[in-house]
Amino acid sequence: MTFGTSVEELQARLDASPFNAWLGLQITNIGTEFVSFRVPPRPEFMGTKRLGRMHGGVLTALIDAAAGYTLMARVGVSITSVDVRVDFHQGAEVETLLIEGAVVRLGRKLACVDVRILSAANVLIASGRGTFYIPTDKSTSPAS
Amino acid sequence: MTFGTSVEELQARLDASPFNAWLGLQITNIGTEFVSFRVPPRPEFMGTKRLGRMHGGVLTALIDAAAGYTLMARVGVSITSVDVRVDFHQGAEVETLLIEGAVVRLGRKLACVDVRILSAANVLIASGRGTFYIPTDKSTSPAS
Amino acid sequence: MTFGTSVEELQARLDASPFNAWLGLQITNIGTEFVSFRVPPRPEFMGTKRLGRMHGGVLTALIDAAAGYTLMARVGVSITSVDVRVDFHQGAEVETLLIEGAVVRLGRKLACVDVRILSAANVLIASGRGTFYIPTDKSTSPAS
Amino acid sequence: MTFGTSVEELQARLDASPFNAWLGLQITNIGTEFVSFRVPPRPEFMGTKRLGRMHGGVLTALIDAAAGYTLMARVGVSITSVDVRVDFHQGAEVETLLIEGAVVRLGRKLACVDVRILSAANVLIASGRGTFYIPTDKSTSPAS
Repeated sequence: MTFGTSVEELQARLDASPFNAWLGLQITNIGTEFVSFRVPPRPEFMGTKRLGRMHGGVLTALIDAAAGYTLMARVGVSITSVDVRVDFHQGAEVETLLIEGAVVRLGRKLACVDVRILSAANVLIASGRGTFYIPTDKSTSPAS
Repeated sequence: MTFGTSVEELQARLDASPFNAWLGLQITNIGTEFVSFRVPPRPEFMGTKRLGRMHGGVLTALIDAAAGYTLMARVGVSITSVDVRVDFHQGAEVETLLIEGAVVRLGRKLACVDVRILSAANVLIASGRGTFYIPTDKSTSPAS
Repeated sequence: MTFGTSVEELQARLDASPFNAWLGLQITNIGTEFVSFRVPPRPEFMGTKRLGRMHGGVLTALIDAAAGYTLMARVGVSITSVDVRVDFHQGAEVETLLIEGAVVRLGRKLACVDVRILSAANVLIASGRGTFYIPTDKSTSPAS
Repeated sequence: MTFGTSVEELQARLDASPFNAWLGLQITNIGTEFVSFRVPPRPEFMGTKRLGRMHGGVLTALIDAAAGYTLMARVGVSITSVDVRVDFHQGAEVETLLIEGAVVRLGRKLACVDVRILSAANVLIASGRGTFYIPTDKSTSPAS
């Protein structure tokens, strides 16, 4: 249940992805049970100016990305997203968000990862789950 | 089963949302059964430079947004996202995407909307479903 | 897009499963796009006696089972359920239900199947989607 | 975060439902964070005789039912299922199952409940989440 990847290595990998870099995900901790992230606000994250709240699509994108990196911290190889499901629990201001990812089940071919998004005040904003396929043949393995 | 909103009105509403404007969703048609969208590529949509493909989180964000506007074309009032689920069917290049939204069930309080994302070559890239709550008290209605 | 299995063969396979036999799923048609099922009512399908309606858990079980047999009609080998999602659209009497399954995407390793449950009067009661893993090594293939 | 319902009251309500009674769900504990259930095996729960394993549809039905009663232990009124999602983590023998339900988020109108199914040996078999609508007008309240 230990993670072989350092925060710096995983962050470098994340930053090399244009969309993840745009989302601004910062890995704050890789623990034995959780991977933690911090996401500073961007003006583009806003849904409607009238309400001034975070767009739901930003939350789904963050859950998809955080689920993937939580799993990569564990398995250390490229993975393929199968599906993702997100529940919106409460409207969020466009402010720093805290994210926690946890591997629910790591099988030989498939894995399931839970993600929770909390406001800066620690209120649960959204949560969800991603399912991933873990390819094992060499042709789909990462170059490294 | 007719939609009371014009493409121009719905597009104006969409463009007023910072995140939807950033995603670049263009409403191409509001039909009796489907609402269609077109999304030009952005460099930030890329997942990994090694594969050069669309990030899954962009697809989840597009499905969340397209589901909402498909429902708004029908009900014409503000709605609240309850949950969204996305299945990734095939990797997509960072190219123009075509999106179709269709209302599956419109209840008094809850609605369910299906969305499909197709590549420019008409290959199914991702599909999913959003569930929405339709508030009826005036305090949550839009100003317009 | 043709199905190699006859209704009789698939029904025999279904009936050999104690839970599917208890659910009473009857395959009525294997088409090129849809597999159709019919489910006669059972007194045990009732949720609460006060409302006299079909229990939601019966609908989820039917969607899981129908999704699997819809895929088996196409691929003809054993498959493994990865996940299933069900939306409840409307309360249903404990009466004959009609079910339609359709393969959304058949990949090399993973498949996605949509299922709709209709009342005898053709009203959409519930719909959902199952994701399946298609094992390819011989040890997990069926005996036949 | 206290639950106002006793195990006996909730079990009586559960037993009055034909399908829940058939599933054989036994409420073992109503705690401040979790509601626990025990489900003895039935021969009809089997998927295929060849594998001798629990049918996935039984697991989806148990998750739907357990999610509902976990929420009812908290809110004490009738609720309506909106959707349910289930992930299958590992094949299970047809043996006694242990189930834990936990309310993730209780809003004014909507609630979200997580459920885990464990084998007798405490292995995670399946997990999932149900979303519920909580009606507030009197016409939909229970008679009691």
